[in-house]
Amino acid sequence: MHNAPPEVLISEVGPRDGLQSIQATMPTAHKLRWIDALVAAGLREIEVGSFVPPRLLPQMADAPAVVQHALKHPGLTVMALVPNRRGAEAALASGVHKITLPVSASEAHSLANVRKTREQMLDELRAVHALRRDAVPGVAMEVGLSTAFGCTLQGAVDEDDVIRLAVACAEAGADEVGLSDTSGMAHPLQVRRLFTRLRAELGERAGAAHMHNTRGLGLANCLAAYDVGVRTFDASLGGLGGCPYAPGASGNVVTEDLVFMFEAMGVRTGVDMEQLIVAREPLKAGLPGEPVYGMTPEAGLPKGWLSNTTSAT
Amino acid sequence: MHNAPPEVLISEVGPRDGLQSIQATMPTAHKLRWIDALVAAGLREIEVGSFVPPRLLPQMADAPAVVQHALKHPGLTVMALVPNRRGAEAALASGVHKITLPVSASEAHSLANVRKTREQMLDELRAVHALRRDAVPGVAMEVGLSTAFGCTLQGAVDEDDVIRLAVACAEAGADEVGLSDTSGMAHPLQVRRLFTRLRAELGERAGAAHMHNTRGLGLANCLAAYDVGVRTFDASLGGLGGCPYAPGASGNVVTEDLVFMFEAMGVRTGVDMEQLIVAREPLKAGLPGEPVYGMTPEAGLPKGWLSNTTSAT
Repeated sequence: MHNAPPEVLISEVGPRDGLQSIQATMPTAHKLRWIDALVAAGLREIEVGSFVPPRLLPQMADAPAVVQHALKHPGLTVMALVPNRRGAEAALASGVHKITLPVSASEAHSLANVRKTREQMLDELRAVHALRRDAVPGVAMEVGLSTAFGCTLQGAVDEDDVIRLAVACAEAGADEVGLSDTSGMAHPLQVRRLFTRLRAELGERAGAAHMHNTRGLGLANCLAAYDVGVRTFDASLGGLGGCPYAPGASGNVVTEDLVFMFEAMGVRTGVDMEQLIVAREPLKAGLPGEPVYGMTPEAGLPKGWLSNTTSAT
Repeated sequence: MHNAPPEVLISEVGPRDGLQSIQATMPTAHKLRWIDALVAAGLREIEVGSFVPPRLLPQMADAPAVVQHALKHPGLTVMALVPNRRGAEAALASGVHKITLPVSASEAHSLANVRKTREQMLDELRAVHALRRDAVPGVAMEVGLSTAFGCTLQGAVDEDDVIRLAVACAEAGADEVGLSDTSGMAHPLQVRRLFTRLRAELGERAGAAHMHNTRGLGLANCLAAYDVGVRTFDASLGGLGGCPYAPGASGNVVTEDLVFMFEAMGVRTGVDMEQLIVAREPLKAGLPGEPVYGMTPEAGLPKGWLSNTTSAT
């Protein structure tokens, strides 16, 4: 089993989604150490930063330097969030492999989060698509459809609307469209229903499940998504993150617990649990006093647990 | 939907499993208030105490008085844990509707927990079965097979052994045999596999899923059990509980989060979320300083949530 390829991709969003959601700014040197530790644990895709005006998000002001460092890790997919065409220009100039755009399924959340309607975000998406096609066609572009399972501001979000918007994003040029439970309102049956529809519409362009643990259902929702064929999962080390414009919606799925679930199930993640727990140290060192979550690190690995990537057998 | 019958049974174990696992003793008056609040929230089965020598578990010394009070609630199934024949005599004399016996799938845990081998516990089970058959044949007897998914002391537990022991318990007289993840080592595929086998062997006598949230997988494991037909789930308000003889194995599944998951899925529990959150107050009042968990109570109910039992429509 040692060298068998991973079956799921854990996309670590902590250095962007996590750090962006908290008040404190992690010093650049700590970010680099943290990313190195994540790579050492076997993570193959990391969202390392966000290309937004530093006056809006000072936590992300060092994004170009962080990208430059992350690019030194062979085999790592370096991803950045861009809210618009201007951010995309800067991100593409930095050399990232993948850009991700936030499009909200809820109109209310779209206006609060990016100050644009959903239609305006589709226009932005087309502009970014044209830009990368002309400048760096090898760069992947993905969309995470936020509030796809419900919105703290408007409540329920129509499922037909979500699917229509996902198709529109793909038509506007997104290589992959994933669904995000920004507000922690998703439940397993809804996750199965929506990802089944998404995959029926988009096939291999159906993207990641981005689940939150706001009400404790994060792993159950990831399991539900896995059950219907999803193979890419966003997660955040220590559960860092949330969304400042979705009040109360704290808590990305904890990478440590998600990897533990899959590895316990025998689903290969390519991530080493022990090294992953070690990667919490630079996170804690870079954000003193910030709460760091995770049930598995607290309980420890169960008796008889065999490390999957460090074991020679 | 208002008066439709519940589809799953949430069996609240906090007043026994929860209170037994902590050092402090909740005063009897608080226990009664707490049980009243649980019943008011719609819980229909409560494990209210344990019939063990008070010198071993002073927290449970008032079990007869607690049973007597709980029996006043019409429609409530009043359950108690008994470790042996002597405990069963006292429990049956108290008037409980249901007794539950702990049988360990792991020999090491059996010796640590009840100071008996598994074979000796089967003998005990036969003796208790004979006792209730002769004295109060209407009383139900169930077994929760602890460490069914792994043991903190011995590591992995053979799945064939678990199923053989479950069948032996049913043959010894148990009306229902459930599986307990005492050590928080279960994962969803294992849960599906073992409960599928259990149901194939025991049919309707296959009992509850008793899951722990030790490594964050509690709800995912309950979902997995639900997927293969399990309809009774043990849970503990505020996540109170664990097992003193399974080091590190803290954390019963939180009743509030489990009910939220099912109700969000449209699976009727008969439990009202708002009243359930109210039931945390007497728990906190009776155990000042004790940690009380639960993601849903902390995050609050999502916008647009309609209470299922208090709504008239």
